[in-house]
Amino acid sequence: MQVAVLGCGTIGQSWVSLFLACGFRVKAYDPDPSAELRVRDHIARFGGVLADLGYTCPHDATHLQFTTDASDSVRGVEFIQENAPENLSSKQHLFHAIAPTLDADAIIASSTSGLILDALQDIAPNPERIVIGHPFNPPHLIPLVEVIGNTRTAPDVLERVMDLYRHVGKSPVALKRSVPGHVANRLQAVLWQEVIHLAKEGVASLAEIDQILADGPGLRWSLYGPNTLFSMAAGDRGIEGFITHLGPSFEAWWQDAGQVVLDSQTQAFIAEQMASWQGGAQIDDLSTIRDRHLLRMLKARRADPLQPVKDPKTR
Amino acid sequence: MQVAVLGCGTIGQSWVSLFLACGFRVKAYDPDPSAELRVRDHIARFGGVLADLGYTCPHDATHLQFTTDASDSVRGVEFIQENAPENLSSKQHLFHAIAPTLDADAIIASSTSGLILDALQDIAPNPERIVIGHPFNPPHLIPLVEVIGNTRTAPDVLERVMDLYRHVGKSPVALKRSVPGHVANRLQAVLWQEVIHLAKEGVASLAEIDQILADGPGLRWSLYGPNTLFSMAAGDRGIEGFITHLGPSFEAWWQDAGQVVLDSQTQAFIAEQMASWQGGAQIDDLSTIRDRHLLRMLKARRADPLQPVKDPKTR
Repeated sequence: MQVAVLGCGTIGQSWVSLFLACGFRVKAYDPDPSAELRVRDHIARFGGVLADLGYTCPHDATHLQFTTDASDSVRGVEFIQENAPENLSSKQHLFHAIAPTLDADAIIASSTSGLILDALQDIAPNPERIVIGHPFNPPHLIPLVEVIGNTRTAPDVLERVMDLYRHVGKSPVALKRSVPGHVANRLQAVLWQEVIHLAKEGVASLAEIDQILADGPGLRWSLYGPNTLFSMAAGDRGIEGFITHLGPSFEAWWQDAGQVVLDSQTQAFIAEQMASWQGGAQIDDLSTIRDRHLLRMLKARRADPLQPVKDPKTR
Repeated sequence: MQVAVLGCGTIGQSWVSLFLACGFRVKAYDPDPSAELRVRDHIARFGGVLADLGYTCPHDATHLQFTTDASDSVRGVEFIQENAPENLSSKQHLFHAIAPTLDADAIIASSTSGLILDALQDIAPNPERIVIGHPFNPPHLIPLVEVIGNTRTAPDVLERVMDLYRHVGKSPVALKRSVPGHVANRLQAVLWQEVIHLAKEGVASLAEIDQILADGPGLRWSLYGPNTLFSMAAGDRGIEGFITHLGPSFEAWWQDAGQVVLDSQTQAFIAEQMASWQGGAQIDDLSTIRDRHLLRMLKARRADPLQPVKDPKTR
């Protein structure tokens, strides 16, 4: 299969490595010629992880073709993963640049985290070919892809995209509506707001709250979401029993939750609290540790399936 | 060491198993005599998991002494984990029942999730001996314990409690203030509120959102909290670079986040969405799968430490 990856920043590089590991021929476009080196570095760096995860062609960069010519990159390509900068003018410029050489049957999936589907469709010459396929960092490891089509989407496009993401080992979830931030980032957002609020209230430091999360709720959320976990907690009484028992507490905590604005005072507070975090080598080390653990968890899931609650609407 | 566990519901049973696995002599109190059978069943059922996790005395129920006499249960005991029903009158009744036989040096740690420390101290004959030690379900596996003392707490009590929890293999975090829900449950609460909101808005079903969480952000949160992850995301620019890049998006998502009330309509909506979740054997199966994965993750952390960001205040 021939795919194109448009925009080779962090997210684009990760898609390139993943698609190559699946044996696809990949055309990678970036307006900056030096991006090619970063793409090839990513392939070399993460090939081992992908091989360990069971991908068949982890080191095969011979199927990569890099170009700084957007219109050339999509010629003869069935599937395009778009990762242009997160603003409508950049996306619009790119959509128009590739339109003349685009196959009539090609699909463009946008990695956008901040834009909604209608906004992308409104600036594109071919709105019926565009969907959202939003990965989660690091995209070559995290299974989730949030997929969004709508009534303007051409028939079969959504199902073809879902099939492709499943084929490359992802767990795509098709959202029924496009809302700002999709789902995963909105969940990150509300969580982080309360984290900052509690730190500002002096309950615990940001680093302590990170530890609380990773040693407590985060461990469970890597296996099941809250609806499943809360249903488990109440045993035979299910989620209704849980709400009877703890609903009033949750309502009180919702009332007491804080609102945060990232004004200069709050930004200074966060920067001061995270001052020990100097970046550089430490970040590379932690990313490597993170990826090793993610790899173990993904392999464990394959050997010992989680069997979460089935959605009555989809089974 | 001699400890007492007061109240042998789900949480109390789990504390009993953990303390026995550490070689402690445990006095377990519950007003219901049939609780003894459930406690012994828990020990038998989870002894293997605790042994696998490296605890030395996993099956040793000979060090367990069950009683329905609260005052007798604390005689000669250094440390008491209290798990009475979550209301002040139950706790008050128990605190007064044990006061006459309590060692002068004994510490009472309450597992309360819903009450704040001041409220507990106000109803106790010995407020200086009472702290909060809030575990996270299932307590014999999840490392987190939220610990809270305050200015009314006797000297050394907080440090002794932290040492004890560390000794039994937990990762205690001492909060600087007692607020409703402590930290972990407040984070669960804000997350669940947005989950319900998005499901009610028709963006995705509750089961789909559970999948999004477990296949995306949840995987990462089992390793690091958001401050650490966001610092990693921006590389050398750290958390300040992250805020510059994504702060405006987060503020927009905060503005757009929903508020939920668990009224009858919302409860019916949740129950209908989770209708496929029938409880019973399925819940036991999932709990067993969950515990196997938790066990693997905890062992992986020991073999390959996560080294999260250090708090400048505590290092």
